[in-house]
Amino acid sequence: MADLYVALVHHPVYNKHHKVITSSVTNIDVHDIARSCRTYGVKAFYVVTPVAALRALVRRIMRHWRDGEGRDYNPTRTEALDLVRLEPSLEGVGISIERETGALPAVICTTARLRPEAVPFSKLAADLRSPGPARLLLLGTGWGLTDELFQHADETLEPLAPGGDYNHLSVRAAAAIILDRLKGTR
Amino acid sequence: MADLYVALVHHPVYNKHHKVITSSVTNIDVHDIARSCRTYGVKAFYVVTPVAALRALVRRIMRHWRDGEGRDYNPTRTEALDLVRLEPSLEGVGISIERETGALPAVICTTARLRPEAVPFSKLAADLRSPGPARLLLLGTGWGLTDELFQHADETLEPLAPGGDYNHLSVRAAAAIILDRLKGTR
Repeated sequence: MADLYVALVHHPVYNKHHKVITSSVTNIDVHDIARSCRTYGVKAFYVVTPVAALRALVRRIMRHWRDGEGRDYNPTRTEALDLVRLEPSLEGVGISIERETGALPAVICTTARLRPEAVPFSKLAADLRSPGPARLLLLGTGWGLTDELFQHADETLEPLAPGGDYNHLSVRAAAAIILDRLKGTR
Repeated sequence: MADLYVALVHHPVYNKHHKVITSSVTNIDVHDIARSCRTYGVKAFYVVTPVAALRALVRRIMRHWRDGEGRDYNPTRTEALDLVRLEPSLEGVGISIERETGALPAVICTTARLRPEAVPFSKLAADLRSPGPARLLLLGTGWGLTDELFQHADETLEPLAPGGDYNHLSVRAAAAIILDRLKGTR
């Protein structure tokens, strides 16, 4: 089985006017996606933002749930947050995974829009069941990952609802469904 | 095809000490689950709470996104929130669906714990593709739906990760995965 890592990208992403921006970190994204990652056996969940103050904020939230009252109140939250790692850039994520696994991961982009290079979920699910390099799944915030990231990625996953008339899931919901399709037993 | 309705239940649910309580309504649950319902063709999404002040709060949020600035800023959010209906009790939900479809719905409970009566996702997915009564899917908040609800339900869905060692997804994530398994095209 190949290891799966997840990164929630706050830069570079688009805003609604297709400008490249840094989106702000949403507390509930960290909690929800950490729980989904824990459920489906993801090795680590990277929250990627160049803003040091936001990384410090997430660190403080994690400390609350890891030590002190948070751990007593809700240990399952602590357990999920143990998967969270903070990095200023995707380059840092690559280096961190290389340090852990001995090689750079293959990078998989996700998108709500159909792209010509997209591969089906079944393909990546099968890849993850076979031996191979670690995979790093990129989730975009704001209005999505930039074209530059797609150009440099190893693969792009097909959208969740390619035939549908509405493709505006929250990133929390999309992350959960993507992990279930890739790693859920059914 | 049978119609699918979803209800997010804030009473009766358990707290962590297995006491029956009324949980508070979380703004982000309404937004996220409405988007997931819109994506997967759910007919309506009921937010069920006996607390009139909380129903009024949700109504105010919906108004913000339906009229005024919200609609201009993010019309996809408006479109999802158009599915949201507020009811003080599950009895009210049943009456509302009966008024719309001519019959009471079959009630389907969801749970993170394995129960002897649970049916597989594939069974309900097949049922939804066949003609039949409307189905009402109950999602619990807090520490889950009460035993009384399971006893009165027509069916209970199996947990998402019956073999896993961690079953603590957020209700937002669980709702998204459940709808994808029941209504996603794959």
